[in-house]
Amino acid sequence: MVYIDQRLQLMRKKSVNLILIGFGNVGKAFFHLMEEKAERIRIQFDLDLNLKAIFDVEGGLFSASPIKQNHVLETSARALALNPLWKPGLSLGTVLREVEAGVLVECTSSNIKTGEPGLRHINEALENGWHVATANKGPLAVDFKGLGEKARRNRLELKSSGATAAALPALDVGLYSLAGTEVLAIEGILNGTTNYILTKMARGTSYSEALKEAQAKGIAERDPSLDVEGWDTAVKLLLIANAVMGLNLSLENIEVEGITGISAQVIEASKKEGKAIKLLGKVHREHSHIKAEVSLSAVDRSHPLFGVDGTNKGITYFTDSMGAVTVTGGKSDPRGAAAALLKDIINIYR
Amino acid sequence: MVYIDQRLQLMRKKSVNLILIGFGNVGKAFFHLMEEKAERIRIQFDLDLNLKAIFDVEGGLFSASPIKQNHVLETSARALALNPLWKPGLSLGTVLREVEAGVLVECTSSNIKTGEPGLRHINEALENGWHVATANKGPLAVDFKGLGEKARRNRLELKSSGATAAALPALDVGLYSLAGTEVLAIEGILNGTTNYILTKMARGTSYSEALKEAQAKGIAERDPSLDVEGWDTAVKLLLIANAVMGLNLSLENIEVEGITGISAQVIEASKKEGKAIKLLGKVHREHSHIKAEVSLSAVDRSHPLFGVDGTNKGITYFTDSMGAVTVTGGKSDPRGAAAALLKDIINIYR
Repeated sequence: MVYIDQRLQLMRKKSVNLILIGFGNVGKAFFHLMEEKAERIRIQFDLDLNLKAIFDVEGGLFSASPIKQNHVLETSARALALNPLWKPGLSLGTVLREVEAGVLVECTSSNIKTGEPGLRHINEALENGWHVATANKGPLAVDFKGLGEKARRNRLELKSSGATAAALPALDVGLYSLAGTEVLAIEGILNGTTNYILTKMARGTSYSEALKEAQAKGIAERDPSLDVEGWDTAVKLLLIANAVMGLNLSLENIEVEGITGISAQVIEASKKEGKAIKLLGKVHREHSHIKAEVSLSAVDRSHPLFGVDGTNKGITYFTDSMGAVTVTGGKSDPRGAAAALLKDIINIYR
Repeated sequence: MVYIDQRLQLMRKKSVNLILIGFGNVGKAFFHLMEEKAERIRIQFDLDLNLKAIFDVEGGLFSASPIKQNHVLETSARALALNPLWKPGLSLGTVLREVEAGVLVECTSSNIKTGEPGLRHINEALENGWHVATANKGPLAVDFKGLGEKARRNRLELKSSGATAAALPALDVGLYSLAGTEVLAIEGILNGTTNYILTKMARGTSYSEALKEAQAKGIAERDPSLDVEGWDTAVKLLLIANAVMGLNLSLENIEVEGITGISAQVIEASKKEGKAIKLLGKVHREHSHIKAEVSLSAVDRSHPLFGVDGTNKGITYFTDSMGAVTVTGGKSDPRGAAAALLKDIINIYR
């Protein structure tokens, strides 16, 4: 019996080619985590992940045999371009066409207005038979419908856990665990930076001090406007609501409020009533109309997101047959996003 | 383009035969929910669910064409045996062999000592090429390993969301959303009855009053011993930990404490320290050793399960690459369990 089982396993073992594009914090974290987990993934899921190329802005590192971590780190700790495998000006399209299709891992930085350069990368991948796992939310914010249809038409997967809330499995729960139930409404704390600032303010810190602290810790960016003005939350809400509720929202359909106008007095007053002020992304149906907003909301102790503090995130799905289902936590750092990408890749081949 | 898409859909549309065994609260809820959701499941997942037989203790209702709800309810509101399709003494094995294989939906009542009668049903289904979705935890408590191996050997799915915590997607998150991460520890509030009693006690009600109230509301059974002595929690912990951490625990490996010994004083004292007393199922690795227990635990405000009150449940996975991921909520009534069964069936055919 053991003999037969082993033969079955050998037959099922699947080799999957990967291309990584974008070698910033998340791309690097993915590169490291992939090596760290390769053996486990081989044993547990019968998947051999072969990284064939890494692209950054100036070109690509490409190898016919899988790229090994040691080789990259030893020869090009400072820049990919120092690696002997480096090909300046190499285009993504060339590799997508020349290598047997697997998964494009999209980690370039996010532009929620143009979607570029990720939008072009994802389109090119889907047109050449490659699945996509993206940590970049720009392309989906700009063309959710078009990319989704292209993937379906070509029978490919377009996975975006890493783009919606890093290791918080918001999309998995919405798409997989709630299969067959109707999602009536969604409420989420989807941005760690603003939740950190609001948590600090509830403990007496002023807005500007809390923001400075967040920036010093690397939680907030030097230009924090996308976070504190609510746009990061809005984009994640858009991605999740469109996927889970089958909508076609674009950013113009979402009423967006940030946290910049919040006063210490309002927070203090809510606290006295036993409530917490949270920046919630919310979507619900009002009759046949969909209402989507990002707004400062006072939530009371009985709300499932009441205790989600600091950089933590969380999301609640209100459903017809399963009641309210909430998922919280999950690392929101580059390693968490990398783990979400890896999870998506594994689940493409289940 | 629409034309092609529709043709693809037609080609993919899948007809799935179901056998429902056990027609108590959960079985009936499944029967109703299936009818309620049939159209949605057909459109969204391209699945046609055809109920071919319903079994209760004395026999089965069997039909070559799919059984319709109206027909069952109109002719046999009081007992299945009044239906013209009723066949006294009909055996499950006969139907498993005569009908094209689909999914056996196991809803008979749970016996965690013998696993019967569900154990026999599930074995028979797997031997005849049928997938299984079970709301009955007895069989898995008794023979987790044997049933799992039989399913794998026959390339069949054995799904048990409905048995582990009804609509709380504990297994989905553990198996799907955490793919590729290492689960270092699990902590869960897995029993609604005991959590209800503890929540009431924290608000000043005595143990015996809280229990009586729970019984009056149908939350606790007349003989509440399986719940209040911790065994229900232990069985769910076993199912989840074995599946998610790849263990082979049996009930003897779990140290089980219930809530019967708790005093109002202890609860009051914890409350003063800002903590809540919860009945937690816990598994963690201590070096190479696995420690599994069900115990009364004082959790503080920062614990992700701190706010899980009343009949609500929740589970936290502590992982190496994704941090702590928690899922809470989900209806724990028969409709919630039915929704979990339906979700499992849909996901078998994704």
